[in-house]
Amino acid sequence: MKTSIATVCLSGTLVEKLHACAAAGFDGVEIFEPDLVSAFESPEEIRALAARLGLALDLYQPMRDVEGVDEETFADVLRRARAKFELMQRLGMDLVLCCSNVGTATVDDDDVSASQLRRLGELAQGYGIRIAFEALAWGRFVDDYRRAWRIVELADHPAVGLCLDSFHILSRGHDPAAIEGIPGERIFFLQLADAPAVTMDVLSWSRHHRLFPGEGSFDLAGFVAHVVRAGYSGPLSLEVFNDTFRQTDVQGTAVHARRSLRWLEDAVCRLPGMGTAAVTGLDRLPGSPAPTGFDFAEITAADTSGIEVMLAQLGFTARGRHRTKPVTLWSAGDARIVLNEQHAVGVQPHLAAIGLLVPDPDRLGARARELGTPIAYRRTYTSEQALDAAIAPDGTQIFWSAARDAGEPAWTAEFEHGAPRESAEDAGILAIDHVSLTQPWQAIDEAVLFYTSVFSLEPVSATDVASPRGLVQSRVMRSPDGSVRLPLNVAPSSFETSGPSSGLAQHVAVRCSDARALARSARGRGLDALRIPDNYYADLAARFPLDPAFLEELRDLGMVYDRDGEAEYLQFYTCTVGTVFWEFVERRAGYDGYGAGNAPVRLSAQGAGL
Amino acid sequence: MKTSIATVCLSGTLVEKLHACAAAGFDGVEIFEPDLVSAFESPEEIRALAARLGLALDLYQPMRDVEGVDEETFADVLRRARAKFELMQRLGMDLVLCCSNVGTATVDDDDVSASQLRRLGELAQGYGIRIAFEALAWGRFVDDYRRAWRIVELADHPAVGLCLDSFHILSRGHDPAAIEGIPGERIFFLQLADAPAVTMDVLSWSRHHRLFPGEGSFDLAGFVAHVVRAGYSGPLSLEVFNDTFRQTDVQGTAVHARRSLRWLEDAVCRLPGMGTAAVTGLDRLPGSPAPTGFDFAEITAADTSGIEVMLAQLGFTARGRHRTKPVTLWSAGDARIVLNEQHAVGVQPHLAAIGLLVPDPDRLGARARELGTPIAYRRTYTSEQALDAAIAPDGTQIFWSAARDAGEPAWTAEFEHGAPRESAEDAGILAIDHVSLTQPWQAIDEAVLFYTSVFSLEPVSATDVASPRGLVQSRVMRSPDGSVRLPLNVAPSSFETSGPSSGLAQHVAVRCSDARALARSARGRGLDALRIPDNYYADLAARFPLDPAFLEELRDLGMVYDRDGEAEYLQFYTCTVGTVFWEFVERRAGYDGYGAGNAPVRLSAQGAGL
Repeated sequence: MKTSIATVCLSGTLVEKLHACAAAGFDGVEIFEPDLVSAFESPEEIRALAARLGLALDLYQPMRDVEGVDEETFADVLRRARAKFELMQRLGMDLVLCCSNVGTATVDDDDVSASQLRRLGELAQGYGIRIAFEALAWGRFVDDYRRAWRIVELADHPAVGLCLDSFHILSRGHDPAAIEGIPGERIFFLQLADAPAVTMDVLSWSRHHRLFPGEGSFDLAGFVAHVVRAGYSGPLSLEVFNDTFRQTDVQGTAVHARRSLRWLEDAVCRLPGMGTAAVTGLDRLPGSPAPTGFDFAEITAADTSGIEVMLAQLGFTARGRHRTKPVTLWSAGDARIVLNEQHAVGVQPHLAAIGLLVPDPDRLGARARELGTPIAYRRTYTSEQALDAAIAPDGTQIFWSAARDAGEPAWTAEFEHGAPRESAEDAGILAIDHVSLTQPWQAIDEAVLFYTSVFSLEPVSATDVASPRGLVQSRVMRSPDGSVRLPLNVAPSSFETSGPSSGLAQHVAVRCSDARALARSARGRGLDALRIPDNYYADLAARFPLDPAFLEELRDLGMVYDRDGEAEYLQFYTCTVGTVFWEFVERRAGYDGYGAGNAPVRLSAQGAGL
Repeated sequence: MKTSIATVCLSGTLVEKLHACAAAGFDGVEIFEPDLVSAFESPEEIRALAARLGLALDLYQPMRDVEGVDEETFADVLRRARAKFELMQRLGMDLVLCCSNVGTATVDDDDVSASQLRRLGELAQGYGIRIAFEALAWGRFVDDYRRAWRIVELADHPAVGLCLDSFHILSRGHDPAAIEGIPGERIFFLQLADAPAVTMDVLSWSRHHRLFPGEGSFDLAGFVAHVVRAGYSGPLSLEVFNDTFRQTDVQGTAVHARRSLRWLEDAVCRLPGMGTAAVTGLDRLPGSPAPTGFDFAEITAADTSGIEVMLAQLGFTARGRHRTKPVTLWSAGDARIVLNEQHAVGVQPHLAAIGLLVPDPDRLGARARELGTPIAYRRTYTSEQALDAAIAPDGTQIFWSAARDAGEPAWTAEFEHGAPRESAEDAGILAIDHVSLTQPWQAIDEAVLFYTSVFSLEPVSATDVASPRGLVQSRVMRSPDGSVRLPLNVAPSSFETSGPSSGLAQHVAVRCSDARALARSARGRGLDALRIPDNYYADLAARFPLDPAFLEELRDLGMVYDRDGEAEYLQFYTCTVGTVFWEFVERRAGYDGYGAGNAPVRLSAQGAGL
């Protein structure tokens, strides 16, 4: 299906927005009136620019407060409408959005509203224009699409049809199934927005917190399926009022927005009974199963030797140096850490990349490209394994390679002069458990869509964690089987102004079979673990009836503990090097969380060390 | 009355918080348990530090999920409680907050809850500890202070009393009048928080959006009056969960918090029938009537000559140079502009200070000092008028001086070698109408309290204005008669990273009797006014049935227009110099707004000129 986007979704001037929408691959745009009013370009210039860019000008919006009024007020509606229709003719546009009345409605009568819409439609028809009537969720009398449709039916004029907006329908909990009873040709336009599941007044929710499809909690695929089944054949258009997207880079946001529609179109196709593209006009994406585990985590720095010392203390084995690059590999069990000194002059240690094991790398690559995902470049020699990577919204490179039934991935063979895997001391280290990535506040919603659409991860939880300098928002993305988990953390704004070294650290969590044994052996090899306050252990004793010897062992080793029913979680942390630290975790009896209750103590202890 | 504050209100470590609370003048603190758990200092060290700082440790909080449970669960409650009571003994504390059960309650029976609280009270009594039971707004069964009080009455134990929290009571709309029926000595503690009038789930509202008294919309003075009338004699304590205050500078926030209680205490005193301090223990502030007008606006810059050119074009008169400082005065009507080049090497033009005319400068000064307001220093020679100024949270200096019945304030006599006021060309300029100040996002709530408590202004409206780079939040503070108006604008975060010159500009709006005549004469003298797009005028014609000649005149002069019923508003803007621009406004028929509908076009046009 064709795609469109309302200019209000984006930052910048109208001209900047049109360029960005065209570059992102949209077929058309909705012109949000205030964007035109603020533009120095004439309507004719905008029309010509859109034509050159190949962008359809799909919908002029909004006209407000046009029906349900007394006749004196309606005379002024027609006066306003004439001026706008003349403007639309200059723009070469033929469809205008009319919202249900909020401000001036005094007559709660379908026949009156229908009569007024009919007369407005007659006026519009003279200009070659059609009217799409939309029920706002906070309309004075008309706040339900089913009532809007009754009024449109009563108006009974070819220039008067319906505009459906997922937000106005789903935010009110109205059942979208009745859309299928509306003739498709009477649905003149379809606006789509997702939204988070929050409880607040619907106007604020709508004006500030809408999201692109795939980032919120609405069932948009099901919603669009109803509209497609009704026979609607116009564009899928985004209308997302969001305080963040209004101020982020216009090109990046347009690409992100376009990706959300591509993902949504695919999700609709995959619903039962949605038939083939020939019937619905909807295109599938290459299907790509979820990843089955972490392949590696990569730390980049000018000098990675401090990390090498730490990895050795933790029982990792130095697996050697890459044949052609200043890159070394360390491993323990299935946990692989790549240390990269290439192009890293002056760079402090930071988490630059992660690798995921996937069932079908080629299909994932095709899917990523169709989703407009930025792809990272890595120099690869003929003899080497070519690895693909997507660049996440926070800049982290996400690699993928084929999972093997047994043994390590093929790329590990490129490392030389190290100890073989077999010789690795058995430190009880199993694999990478999760990787926590710090997100700029602007990137978190896009990141959710990125990991959902490209890597088939699922957002599973959101929580706030107190730090001494503000609340850290945390959202976890994970694969269905839990083998890949990415907690995404948004630092409080105060962190950003405090310089990179005091920012919120990223971390790699490694799962092991016996965290206490590992902590003890690592300490024996000189590991500098993060210190935990004694007060924590006094509180732990109050929270859980723990064996005193076990409690004392935790205290002695600087370990923290959580319990969820019978399931238990043991953790210890290294100190932070650059902006990265390591966590070692032991999951007992199916513990499925991340010890969020211990994070405030950890964040505080990390701050104390600065 | 004594004052206290929960450590959760502030950022930093527990030790940092204690120092800040003592420095701000609090009598005591509530210890928020996670702050202690995260501290490396032992309970004994915290106790000793508080003693040295003269801070009482008023309340340990919170203990959760203690009542309404089955007996097996209650056995574990007692086990937990013993550990906490031992800890409190080490801290030397004797009062603990127990919240109504959220997580583990299974028994909805006042007798059961009362019995469990009585047994908990008996245990506490053995440690010399008392329990303050509080109904959380989202308690599983107990979510109303009146029910909490019934349970406390039933428990009938001297170590079991009530904690009242304004948020939990007022957020639910519960009538606080029944507090007066509770014996004051059974109210063990009083927690205070304000909150904005928003519609959202009460848990999120409570955890993220509480405010200090005077910053939200609760009637806290009325609330406290009920508690005082009940005979409560403990501290007034702040418990404000707020995402911003958790990350702002701890010392500054503590002073700000203390100011909110000082203001509240005064507001309670002023309620009818609240008697004298001897009876209630409440202290009044020196009363200070609201300002009656703007005295001046001051621009500081290394070189103010560009502004001088602009002021001359607008019909202002150069009134001369200050006797001892590199400062010049310009005036037109009662609008006075001070241009200051002192200590301004390398400084771009910015709005550094405003002056207000007040009925009683001495009382205002005494009030400001009692509120802990930072006072600005200005070198003053013997022969000169001493002016006082408070430093607003955004750094702007707010001066005040005595309003005179006729003529200019005395300080203007210090300017020499300029034209006399009488010779000023009559440009129809009346006075400064309003001054828009850009606020850092961290400062806006504190700014509301600052202008309310020190200058007796009132917050009257809040709105969002769209700019090409995000939404600008605007809140207007004004004097009751409208003679002083300060729109406070919070720029989107994206502005902050774009360098000072592209930040959101501040502006001085000057009222005139005929804005078109002024715009025309200023243009004749070469003024470079802000250009407004033609599309704006096409839209204006659609919005209002305006006389075409009038519309053409507005377009020709680059003026914008608003109407509210019969009231009209005409505006034009200068271009921006440094981070300041001027606006000239004509208010017709009592127009009382600020042309918010025109602000997006203005912001867009300002962006276009960059």
